[in-house]
Amino acid sequence: MFSSEARLIGLPLAAIDTPALVIDLEAMEDNIVRMGTYFATRPSKLRPHFKTHKCPILAHKQLAAGAVGVACAKVEEAEVLVAGGVLHNILIANQVVTRTKIFKLMGLNRHAEVMVCVDDSGNVAELAEAAQTFGVEIGVFVEVNVGMNRCGVDTAQAALALVRQVSNSKGLRFVGLQGYEGHDVKIVDLAQRQAAARRDIQRLIETREYIERSGIQVQLVDAGGTGTYNITGEIPGIDEIQAGSYLFGDVSYLGVLEDFRPSLSVLSTVVSRPARDRIITDMGLKAASTDQTLPQPVEVPGVQVRKLAEEHCYLAVDDPANELSVGDRIAFLPGHVCTTVNLHDRYYGVRNGLVEVVWEIAARGKSR
Amino acid sequence: MFSSEARLIGLPLAAIDTPALVIDLEAMEDNIVRMGTYFATRPSKLRPHFKTHKCPILAHKQLAAGAVGVACAKVEEAEVLVAGGVLHNILIANQVVTRTKIFKLMGLNRHAEVMVCVDDSGNVAELAEAAQTFGVEIGVFVEVNVGMNRCGVDTAQAALALVRQVSNSKGLRFVGLQGYEGHDVKIVDLAQRQAAARRDIQRLIETREYIERSGIQVQLVDAGGTGTYNITGEIPGIDEIQAGSYLFGDVSYLGVLEDFRPSLSVLSTVVSRPARDRIITDMGLKAASTDQTLPQPVEVPGVQVRKLAEEHCYLAVDDPANELSVGDRIAFLPGHVCTTVNLHDRYYGVRNGLVEVVWEIAARGKSR
Repeated sequence: MFSSEARLIGLPLAAIDTPALVIDLEAMEDNIVRMGTYFATRPSKLRPHFKTHKCPILAHKQLAAGAVGVACAKVEEAEVLVAGGVLHNILIANQVVTRTKIFKLMGLNRHAEVMVCVDDSGNVAELAEAAQTFGVEIGVFVEVNVGMNRCGVDTAQAALALVRQVSNSKGLRFVGLQGYEGHDVKIVDLAQRQAAARRDIQRLIETREYIERSGIQVQLVDAGGTGTYNITGEIPGIDEIQAGSYLFGDVSYLGVLEDFRPSLSVLSTVVSRPARDRIITDMGLKAASTDQTLPQPVEVPGVQVRKLAEEHCYLAVDDPANELSVGDRIAFLPGHVCTTVNLHDRYYGVRNGLVEVVWEIAARGKSR
Repeated sequence: MFSSEARLIGLPLAAIDTPALVIDLEAMEDNIVRMGTYFATRPSKLRPHFKTHKCPILAHKQLAAGAVGVACAKVEEAEVLVAGGVLHNILIANQVVTRTKIFKLMGLNRHAEVMVCVDDSGNVAELAEAAQTFGVEIGVFVEVNVGMNRCGVDTAQAALALVRQVSNSKGLRFVGLQGYEGHDVKIVDLAQRQAAARRDIQRLIETREYIERSGIQVQLVDAGGTGTYNITGEIPGIDEIQAGSYLFGDVSYLGVLEDFRPSLSVLSTVVSRPARDRIITDMGLKAASTDQTLPQPVEVPGVQVRKLAEEHCYLAVDDPANELSVGDRIAFLPGHVCTTVNLHDRYYGVRNGLVEVVWEIAARGKSR
């Protein structure tokens, strides 16, 4: 499959069959440089999140532009990163719980540096035991709930108890704290977003101070995302920002982010034009996610996405002059970039209208 | 990956890492037999839809239980079916539009029987030209819109015009009509569902009669789905029912179907229990879809799914006695089975608590 798709390299965009995930390489490279430039002059640094692109070569590009390390969500994602040559400073920004995954994490740490987050005492004990079995020492972040109410301990006292347990566990090395103001990153109004993120991150800063007052050094505090990189990234006491979506953008970030250009689209073909007021394309739920919002057509005025079925996108046509017909193509900005990327096996990278690269989305489907 | 997962065969369910898609083999086999028995004594026959399970061995089981052929949604799915040994009577229940896909369809027809639907005159001309280039004759269904307003022509006159074009095209063989009352199949109230399906299918029957009055024989009329198999399947003039979901079931069909047992679940692990009133598991949007409705926990009273993020399921806990903690497992009934299956690379088939098979979901992600 990949070898045959690689035959498209050098051909025009029109040669790509649909549905297909297409990167505007120039826009993506601009985004990487722009984010790198932002952090170049600040105390906080960028640890880009692998979950957005799931493709090791893009992590290498982010590292080359100044990122200090990589965040990922799952052990299997870390495996793909390591297999793709990212060997240092990987943080699984999540809890690693099952026995199989814990053993995999320890095995990886004999060949690369892969750290992990914790929020549970029993889990810390299991990690420590496995680390000792494998003869490795792994870096550990304690996760703090800053108001998203997902993972993470709720109080500074609970955080300190876990920090002490980690510090006292052979095989584990306490590195720092992680919080994620994920409920704030897509607030469209900038002043409201700033206020919400600063309020929530204060809980993380206070936890840092509480732990440091007990005499334990907190080396790193990680937080933030694409919607708060320049808010949380400017709060003293925050060391690293885990932004991912800035690379590509999506509809859910339209209005939030003006600093980055959308660089990813789902290319689609009209498969039915049964009536003047509707168009059906081949971009269904197997090619674009709808968990946050619907995709939007790029540069097709007078056309609205009504819904997606498994294999079909339903478009309502407001403009009676619209002449799109079977076989014509429409590009869509993804509704939510990370879950859309997870549906595809490869990217087609395009520059000046020509296919330049075909990249495997090597961590597609890596949910463990 | 597959060879290492196959090592689980013979081990208990607990040996499967999560998230994982688990088939209750006995329940699934019962569903296959039950549907086969229903159609054994009726004029209408079953053409099960491959899009639900995406796994050739399951198509073979359906054929062995009396199905007359297989429906699928995409050329790539047909490729997987053919590679998996299903060589006869495949219908792509959808339009095949791009040049690459049309050529693939014709290539397949030199090795197997793969039919297609049409609703556009230009598309018919392209199919005919490609069939002649390849020296094949392929079966064609004309799709009729019965009220779902997706693909399909709107009038009997338009259908007849396409039927005539197909009949007059070298390389194409007119087989029949397809309609899909997809907007009716999940109406919970049986009387309402019956009324809606009968009203909508009437448009298809009238189109059949209109075409036959013109002197052209309509060999097959396909329609229906899991929610209307025993409604549409009993309407004279309907020859084949394209049901898929009955095999596994899901939350979206709860209340609609009492004849089949849910046989598929997403196995998940508690990764965080940060507070008494909430549980976080590892079944996120990469392991379960939410496009129709949320997944539901199986046999865990007092626990409700609130939402899914990319890697996390948020559960609200109503029962203060709930003692689930990190590492415990919860099985979920998928919200929408077809899009959930599309997120996974393999099934774990379990009988009497032991893993019996590990099957590749060979058509996962085949969106072209």
